[in-house]
Amino acid sequence: MDAKRLTSIGGVVLALWLSGVAVAQEARMPYVRIAELEIDPARLDAYKASVKEEMEASVRVEPGVLAIYAVAEKDHPTKVRFFEVYADEAAYNSHRESPHFKKYVETTKDMIKSRKLIETVPIQLSDKKK
Amino acid sequence: MDAKRLTSIGGVVLALWLSGVAVAQEARMPYVRIAELEIDPARLDAYKASVKEEMEASVRVEPGVLAIYAVAEKDHPTKVRFFEVYADEAAYNSHRESPHFKKYVETTKDMIKSRKLIETVPIQLSDKKK
Repeated sequence: MDAKRLTSIGGVVLALWLSGVAVAQEARMPYVRIAELEIDPARLDAYKASVKEEMEASVRVEPGVLAIYAVAEKDHPTKVRFFEVYADEAAYNSHRESPHFKKYVETTKDMIKSRKLIETVPIQLSDKKK
Repeated sequence: MDAKRLTSIGGVVLALWLSGVAVAQEARMPYVRIAELEIDPARLDAYKASVKEEMEASVRVEPGVLAIYAVAEKDHPTKVRFFEVYADEAAYNSHRESPHFKKYVETTKDMIKSRKLIETVPIQLSDKKK
């Protein structure tokens, strides 16, 4: 085998290795979704109780649910926003089939006035390690 | 001191203790802000590079910056959303005075087409401990 051929094989090996690194890095980025809900003011406390229970169970029981954060807009307490971090899209789909999620949907279906779901592509997720 | 008076003092002590517990629990809830930015499409890569550097520095250097998450809307890649978690409001104000934040503001001021800042009240922040 001559030097030129060896260099060429080396180039292919390097390219494969680099593409493997790129795929691995991309695979590490979680799947993030945002939801914006408006809640019936008369049912706000009941809604919060139900969603807190569902969030706690999801993060505790489901390996692919990394985080669910729920906040209300300070100036509009019935507008609730979610920032949800899943290991990947499959983990999100599995979450929607979980018994605790289905119970939440059934319990709160008449409490929610509007719902906007936003699929996202993470740019960077920076946090302190706990 | 009679039994009635003792009971009354006990009640006051218990009430003070319970209010202390309530304050401590409230104090543990972080301060969360949301930002929605629209970036000039021609400057999107430069904007992302600048904000990633600023986010990384903020979380690494500032004790009160717990997390900054940046995502783009999948259907509108120039619409960037931030979910920011601070130890408290003072940590947020201190962050805005940091040299890395000021550098980011200066670098990106002509790249940002619109900006909406939303103050929030956390309902629940559930995540897996790292």
